[in-house]
Amino acid sequence: MAGKIDAAARAAALKDLKGWQDAEERDAITKTYQFKDFTAAFAWMKAVAQVAERMDHHPEWRNVYRTVEVVLTSHDADGVTQRDVTMAREMDRLAGAQA
Amino acid sequence: MAGKIDAAARAAALKDLKGWQDAEERDAITKTYQFKDFTAAFAWMKAVAQVAERMDHHPEWRNVYRTVEVVLTSHDADGVTQRDVTMAREMDRLAGAQA
Repeated sequence: MAGKIDAAARAAALKDLKGWQDAEERDAITKTYQFKDFTAAFAWMKAVAQVAERMDHHPEWRNVYRTVEVVLTSHDADGVTQRDVTMAREMDRLAGAQA
Repeated sequence: MAGKIDAAARAAALKDLKGWQDAEERDAITKTYQFKDFTAAFAWMKAVAQVAERMDHHPEWRNVYRTVEVVLTSHDADGVTQRDVTMAREMDRLAGAQA
């Protein structure tokens, strides 16, 4: 199991990703997605859920109508790992032009 | 559009529902569901999402692995309406023996 990425790698990853930032008061990264409506938001969540199952790595997320707030962290490593960066990238890819 | 239910109707509805309670600091009702794992939690969310679309009434919900925290309120009525009670009942029905 890979451990936490170091500060430089994390900064580089955040710079590379769009709209992701360090979470407040937690060792995690976060992003809020906005979709056209609930249908679009939940369709995206369904696609992400499949990735989560495949990776065995699950987001913390909160959905209110067309908004989805996501927090990614790796509980086993007690912080942000490469798996979180990979998941973030997949989420952005699946959101495509929608978010 | 139906308005807020009165205190007596709300108390009766909460008594009838299992595990639902008044939300803190908001005019809403809330429940936390626990499922077997993420797959079961998200399968339930998919079923609820279909009901939400059909009712055009959407939950606020937060999923962390096998847990889903739900908050129901009717923004147009600025409080809890019969639609929230109906949605709560549907959620419980769909959760069946799982939650």
